[in-house]
Amino acid sequence: MKIKSLLTALVAASIAFSPMAFAKEKTYRWRLAETWGPNFPVFGDASKNMAKMVEEMSGGRLQIRIDSANKHKSALGIFDFVRTGQYQMGHSASYYWKGKDINTMFFTTLPFGMTTPEQYAWFYHGGGMELMKETYSKYGILSYPGGNTGNQMGGWFRKEINTLEDLKGLKMRIPGFAGEVLAKLGAKPTNIPSAELYTALERNTIDALEWVGPSLDLRMGFHKIAPYYYTGWHEPATELQFMVNEKAFNSLPEDLQHILTVAMKTAAYDMYTQSTHESSENLATLQKEYPNVKIRSFPPEVMNAIKAENDKLLEEFAAADPLTKKILESIHSYGDKARQWTNFSDRAYLDNFDSK
Amino acid sequence: MKIKSLLTALVAASIAFSPMAFAKEKTYRWRLAETWGPNFPVFGDASKNMAKMVEEMSGGRLQIRIDSANKHKSALGIFDFVRTGQYQMGHSASYYWKGKDINTMFFTTLPFGMTTPEQYAWFYHGGGMELMKETYSKYGILSYPGGNTGNQMGGWFRKEINTLEDLKGLKMRIPGFAGEVLAKLGAKPTNIPSAELYTALERNTIDALEWVGPSLDLRMGFHKIAPYYYTGWHEPATELQFMVNEKAFNSLPEDLQHILTVAMKTAAYDMYTQSTHESSENLATLQKEYPNVKIRSFPPEVMNAIKAENDKLLEEFAAADPLTKKILESIHSYGDKARQWTNFSDRAYLDNFDSK
Repeated sequence: MKIKSLLTALVAASIAFSPMAFAKEKTYRWRLAETWGPNFPVFGDASKNMAKMVEEMSGGRLQIRIDSANKHKSALGIFDFVRTGQYQMGHSASYYWKGKDINTMFFTTLPFGMTTPEQYAWFYHGGGMELMKETYSKYGILSYPGGNTGNQMGGWFRKEINTLEDLKGLKMRIPGFAGEVLAKLGAKPTNIPSAELYTALERNTIDALEWVGPSLDLRMGFHKIAPYYYTGWHEPATELQFMVNEKAFNSLPEDLQHILTVAMKTAAYDMYTQSTHESSENLATLQKEYPNVKIRSFPPEVMNAIKAENDKLLEEFAAADPLTKKILESIHSYGDKARQWTNFSDRAYLDNFDSK
Repeated sequence: MKIKSLLTALVAASIAFSPMAFAKEKTYRWRLAETWGPNFPVFGDASKNMAKMVEEMSGGRLQIRIDSANKHKSALGIFDFVRTGQYQMGHSASYYWKGKDINTMFFTTLPFGMTTPEQYAWFYHGGGMELMKETYSKYGILSYPGGNTGNQMGGWFRKEINTLEDLKGLKMRIPGFAGEVLAKLGAKPTNIPSAELYTALERNTIDALEWVGPSLDLRMGFHKIAPYYYTGWHEPATELQFMVNEKAFNSLPEDLQHILTVAMKTAAYDMYTQSTHESSENLATLQKEYPNVKIRSFPPEVMNAIKAENDKLLEEFAAADPLTKKILESIHSYGDKARQWTNFSDRAYLDNFDSK
């Protein structure tokens, strides 16, 4: 073989293997902005879990650096960070964007809405993902489930709620749509940064507050100053949100797109599992170490009045926007069907074979 | 540059990029044997979903061919296929191996045991995965959750069950541990291949049978010949199983190991979501098209007697084997804690805000 041929062959071999190899070996370095502070439990674990899976499955070809709120200084700026491409990804919650677009509100949870397994069935088999895509596509954002807290507790109250009268003038930290509902019944909903919550409750600046549930409430210390812990109604299946800038997503090779999509989905499911665990552990600790804390449910009179206001407000939203109407109809018709199954399966099982 | 140097440089460059590239480009062709027939709904979707995710995320480097029972002719031979390495993977259910090793039985579901979200929390945060590893490591098999059916229904009955007397002599297709429990109360449990079930029920060869739930029962047609559909007690959270031959797993590059592990986990979670969906849809169809089907729960007298026999049998198992004792203690202590949380969250929510 002539030297020239040998050279040509070597170059050819090198080219034959290289383009693929080079493309595959290229490292993508992405940044994710999250609403939470650093080391925020459970929520922050979900984004870390996602980034770790991506790094491991891609053999390091896609690396996602997480910036917490202390770094980017804008807990509620995540939507714009991802829309503009300043960050390729975000981890937050869709209902935070209701001021920008009312329809984002329906992809987190709704008062009196679906439970977590019901809602995942709606997302992946009942049209939920398609409706979320329709809502977010105009912003160049891809939105995905980002981790579920499970059923959130109704909150910590310094006084018992026995009648509708007890809601009148009640100063409660309860942001968002649920707060709007309570306001219709005379409560004074307010939002207070998490760092100031304990003091506000202790000094009677507020009479009650809702946070998450045992998984996150215990370390806040509310049980030391509020004896009543109410069961939930307003956030039966709070789903966090991963956001990806659409152009950035499209720039990834196909295998990395699949890796990222699966990692987000798994991290979301995993957070529901972790929430179930942390809530179980922390509820046991609470009951053991603080036996005086009383777990209560609102009486039917109160619940029914809240539900009536909730339904009225949703009807107003639906009348104002065709996409809202479409989303709410989907949620209600799917939710009713799924609830029938829940009633005959887990609910019947729990009612038949286990006493409270 | 001398030609020799040029050649050396080219070869060096080729070597510098190639080993990684060659290793990464190697295609692994694996085979998975599943207990189910081809196109078996929901269960078969879980193995297909897993294989598809692996192929897409690995860019085709790991390909898993699925052999259904019609191909390998041994629905309950999966454990041995994977143990011997005849197949690298299997998709089945752990409780099928209780004849080989009693401890495999506890990683699927237990009568009166945990619900699906509770059980996932046990697997991933409560020691379940570690105990499953301890049980399977002696066989060179890695075992993972393989998809959850959700709460299974108690079965189809031609006559109503009102007292313990009604169980005496009752011929029921109910295999495995739940059948052993019913036998203690005078029932005649039996196992019958799925293809013969409808005829056996129609011709009174059996008086009752359990299958899965609306997700899979509807296409079997039992609602046409048995008017009573009982709620569940014996399989509250049936988790299928992925098995991997340990040596085959260790032969994979690290990134493919991660891809496979995440794909199995996601496919398992996804099947729970799909089961919720299919059950909801099919229950709605059943109630609309067959309004005469009556959904019942066993009366407390019957349930309590069944539970007492169940607990007695489990105690006997625990006394016979230290690992059984360890597994059952873990299940019971974790399950009690998780149930407290379920009671104050989803159960309170369903009881307060939704009528059956």
